[in-house]
Amino acid sequence: MEIDTPIRTYISDHRVARLATADASGRPSVIPICYAFDGITIYSPIDRKPKSVSAQDLKRVRNLEENPYVSLVIDDYSDDWAELSYVQISGTARMIEPDDELQGEHRRAVEMLRDKYPQYRSMDIDRTPMIKITPTRLKAWRARPA
Amino acid sequence: MEIDTPIRTYISDHRVARLATADASGRPSVIPICYAFDGITIYSPIDRKPKSVSAQDLKRVRNLEENPYVSLVIDDYSDDWAELSYVQISGTARMIEPDDELQGEHRRAVEMLRDKYPQYRSMDIDRTPMIKITPTRLKAWRARPA
Repeated sequence: MEIDTPIRTYISDHRVARLATADASGRPSVIPICYAFDGITIYSPIDRKPKSVSAQDLKRVRNLEENPYVSLVIDDYSDDWAELSYVQISGTARMIEPDDELQGEHRRAVEMLRDKYPQYRSMDIDRTPMIKITPTRLKAWRARPA
Repeated sequence: MEIDTPIRTYISDHRVARLATADASGRPSVIPICYAFDGITIYSPIDRKPKSVSAQDLKRVRNLEENPYVSLVIDDYSDDWAELSYVQISGTARMIEPDDELQGEHRRAVEMLRDKYPQYRSMDIDRTPMIKITPTRLKAWRARPA
């Protein structure tokens, strides 16, 4: 879908989003994620941070196998409620693998993520699956019109 | 469920949470919410902020009528990933109304919310429905052990 420039900028400029998935029975699960956005698609690595909870952390992956629908919110909270804003993205998600290299999509996502978050340069996100989110609906809200 | 004191404090001290609900078909929806927590139960008003999007904003209410399961995340993001932490709460939710006054639960939630967020003192949250979230499972994580 087409996303307006101010909203594209809002999504790109933020550092954290909260991703909701749901299992086959419709029980939701929400976690904070880091992500890269190319103006069309959102990518979030399965970075197993921390490795000690990897199985639990992969709940989002199990959910996506059962139910591809996701909701993502990117927002600013402030105790000055005139400053509140959010962008809520509805879409579908699937996993892409490092060896899905027909079009180099995984590699390109890794590059975007390492550009946005230097921390990823020393992490093996090039060798782990990645969540690919395709937005289908978008809601942007701010308390005070820009 | 029993919630440990450090986690109770973490939940109480934060100002914003992200609440995921899902509709009957399992499509999730996540939004930022303000909330009060009494150590056992979490309350979030339907404050219709802004009133102009009230119908859309009430998506969470429609979802809860279809599907009581919710997931809530409260977290700190920092570009220093050693500072990352979150508490993820799974539970069920239902609406409580101002006239459900058998035990004064709605009134008590309004008081807690107005104590935590002075903004609510001039808003009519005493006359609107409230989401009551009962935690059933909890996951607490921090990158660096406390």
